Amino acid sequence: MTTPPVANAKWLNRVKWDEHGLVPVIAQEAGSGDVLMFAWMNRDALYKTVELGEAVYWSRSRKKLWHKGEESGHVQKVLEIRLDCDQDVVLLKVEQAGGIACHTGRHACFFNKFEGDPKDGDWQEVEPVLKDPETIYTESKK
Amino acid sequence: MTTPPVANAKWLNRVKWDEHGLVPVIAQEAGSGDVLMFAWMNRDALYKTVELGEAVYWSRSRKKLWHKGEESGHVQKVLEIRLDCDQDVVLLKVEQAGGIACHTGRHACFFNKFEGDPKDGDWQEVEPVLKDPETIYTESKK
Repeated sequence: MTTPPVANAKWLNRVKWDEHGLVPVIAQEAGSGDVLMFAWMNRDALYKTVELGEAVYWSRSRKKLWHKGEESGHVQKVLEIRLDCDQDVVLLKVEQAGGIACHTGRHACFFNKFEGDPKDGDWQEVEPVLKDPETIYTESKK
Repeated sequence: MTTPPVANAKWLNRVKWDEHGLVPVIAQEAGSGDVLMFAWMNRDALYKTVELGEAVYWSRSRKKLWHKGEESGHVQKVLEIRLDCDQDVVLLKVEQAGGIACHTGRHACFFNKFEGDPKDGDWQEVEPVLKDPETIYTESKK
């Protein structure tokens, strides 16, 4: 029986994986400090992220590894990886290829801003679409 | 039968709450852009955050609302609330009272940095403790 190298990496055991074997991940742009997106990783994804130097997430909807940018070209070069005090959240400092992290064609995913009061307020889109999402994906949409 | 105001707030219905009725929340310092911490909110917590103008989370371990800073004084004044493209992650822009967000007495929770190669690397503490955690909480520890 062969054991994959990933199982032997002690640093992966220090991460407190949730009941689904996942950890939440925040991707932050190194230069601007902008929080670009939020996703999840399993052990394989985090190992491959370190190995490759580019963000590899676990797609919960497609149930497979997702090398961010594999279709769009919007890869994230990983400059730094941090783990929080409880060892259950990961923060990536990245360089975002194309300046577009969001599948809507925006720079970042957090483009809905709450405006108004607690009873009658609402979310308003406040960031521009930089690229038509129809043209981002050549093969299929995520 | 009285319906609490929180149930009537339409903007809360636009958030895609997970199977536990929660949404992940990223707290980012407005001035520095530093990602301070990661936590969770339920409907009540998000409503109260807007109402109060200070971060109120849902403590999964204590199973109750957690007004951040209620014991330590390290409250987070909320300047902006964002929701992501999938409506299932919240980003707060905050002012961090005391400059300390982490219960370890550090500025931010993400103080463990991955260093080394995929097989033999490890997490290293790279941020200083600014205040002895023993002195942060006067009554009880979180």
